[in-house]
Amino acid sequence: MLTIFGSTALDTIRTPTKVLKDVLGGAATFAGISASFFVKPRLIAVVGKDFPKKYHKILAERLDLKGLSIKDGKTFRYSGSYDNTLSLRTTLRTDLNVLKNFKPVVPEDYKKSKFVYLANNDPDQNTSLITEFDNVKFSMCDTIDFWISTKRASVVKMFKSVDAVVINDEEAKLLTKEFNLIKCAKKIMGWGAKYVIIKKGEHGSLLFFEDVVFTSAAFSLEKIVDPTGAGDSFAGAMMGYLASKNKTDLATIKKSVVYGNVMGSFAVEGYGPEVLLRIKKSDIKKRITQYEKMTRF
Amino acid sequence: MLTIFGSTALDTIRTPTKVLKDVLGGAATFAGISASFFVKPRLIAVVGKDFPKKYHKILAERLDLKGLSIKDGKTFRYSGSYDNTLSLRTTLRTDLNVLKNFKPVVPEDYKKSKFVYLANNDPDQNTSLITEFDNVKFSMCDTIDFWISTKRASVVKMFKSVDAVVINDEEAKLLTKEFNLIKCAKKIMGWGAKYVIIKKGEHGSLLFFEDVVFTSAAFSLEKIVDPTGAGDSFAGAMMGYLASKNKTDLATIKKSVVYGNVMGSFAVEGYGPEVLLRIKKSDIKKRITQYEKMTRF
Repeated sequence: MLTIFGSTALDTIRTPTKVLKDVLGGAATFAGISASFFVKPRLIAVVGKDFPKKYHKILAERLDLKGLSIKDGKTFRYSGSYDNTLSLRTTLRTDLNVLKNFKPVVPEDYKKSKFVYLANNDPDQNTSLITEFDNVKFSMCDTIDFWISTKRASVVKMFKSVDAVVINDEEAKLLTKEFNLIKCAKKIMGWGAKYVIIKKGEHGSLLFFEDVVFTSAAFSLEKIVDPTGAGDSFAGAMMGYLASKNKTDLATIKKSVVYGNVMGSFAVEGYGPEVLLRIKKSDIKKRITQYEKMTRF
Repeated sequence: MLTIFGSTALDTIRTPTKVLKDVLGGAATFAGISASFFVKPRLIAVVGKDFPKKYHKILAERLDLKGLSIKDGKTFRYSGSYDNTLSLRTTLRTDLNVLKNFKPVVPEDYKKSKFVYLANNDPDQNTSLITEFDNVKFSMCDTIDFWISTKRASVVKMFKSVDAVVINDEEAKLLTKEFNLIKCAKKIMGWGAKYVIIKKGEHGSLLFFEDVVFTSAAFSLEKIVDPTGAGDSFAGAMMGYLASKNKTDLATIKKSVVYGNVMGSFAVEGYGPEVLLRIKKSDIKKRITQYEKMTRF
């Protein structure tokens, strides 16, 4: 089974075509919905009393919510704006609200989870939380520039406590102070992570394990609407796929990265999680076949 | 057989690790050397009387030089400087010299060439030159930002006169005024090119044909020394491979793109064309196998 620890949020996003206000967002939301096509993920997260019932219902249909705390106060809010090319996002505002003093609790029956995904949370919280699981087969964490800038040592320490690190290219460079992504990955592996997955947005991703590099292109799309949540959907798909197979050999991890690329491609085709909420398993299968066709020679 | 029309130059390149002065360069030089691993390409180019004998010897060993004019005056000189990340190049100086009033002449026995590559020359010259070949099976051209900015209509006209356009991502965006690379390619195909290959540097390339997209990653390298000539080596490998097979079906063109990625990866590992001049066919074969391993899932 798979447990996901991360944020649930209400997002306000400006894209060149539309402004979304207080829509369902957060790293754990995207990762969880994406993973839910493969398993029923367990969620550890917090929302405020203002969290809309319809969003709660969406999560409840797809995820085990025993680990979702509902606190007095307001739900975490994020606000960001994309440029015309949709490749640059500026954070306009972050209101932590109930996330500020949240102490995550792992429900008793989550503790046997073999697969654990720690989203871009406070690295100290991630490092502490993973110790509460006593049967972990594969754990993976993400991080963001905010933690790299404010808690670099904690980020490095967190990497030692997991099997895999998933991180985007710019953050990998910021963290390791290297320009070359192979050098970035080697440094991160040197800190203790066995697997490193570097996400390159529209350019796909690189998976590193020992001296193996697996390079995979993104699923090419003509219409990108809102990139929010693509990286989280990528990571969620990886973890969901691995948990569904209950395997962690290299061939399965490579395949999980392909699913990551494909689920990320669905995420960016619509506003917020709307496309992820609309598609069916058959759509994913179809796109995996298209992806194979697009990359085979 | 394959004919290549393009520049031969003396390059002065500043990289973070070394300054190269008056080294062998030019689009046709890289494309020609790269293609020479597959066929013996015919060159149409011009140099001045100052062109070093040792460079002439290098070209003579690999290429048919009947189409190389040696004119009174100085060889075309290019000078550029890379930033620390090796991803941004600034042109410091361009001295056209003998290239300025060069009127390319196609030697009689070149005219039967089935494969013709027109490098980033003046688009009007390319459009005119291709009409002198009477047995063309597959022609491809490149272009650069200078022509897009100064002779846009001629660039578009040139695209109608060839089978394939190879262009880098930034130039494709500049030319088509689109952000999305699929949209860029569709516009270029709309102008008359059957195949469009968009080079994305370290992120690989995209091949477009009708409604097919073939996306291929770059060969991942830890050590990049000098990116000069990578794109030209890519195009040269494509054309050399196709000419050696004498085929232009989609599967063969996909394979030629893979060879393009691999030859481009050799080019960036050393200063100027030094690695391309050092490797053997067996090194290319080995890297193709590594590339397959790196991308298969």
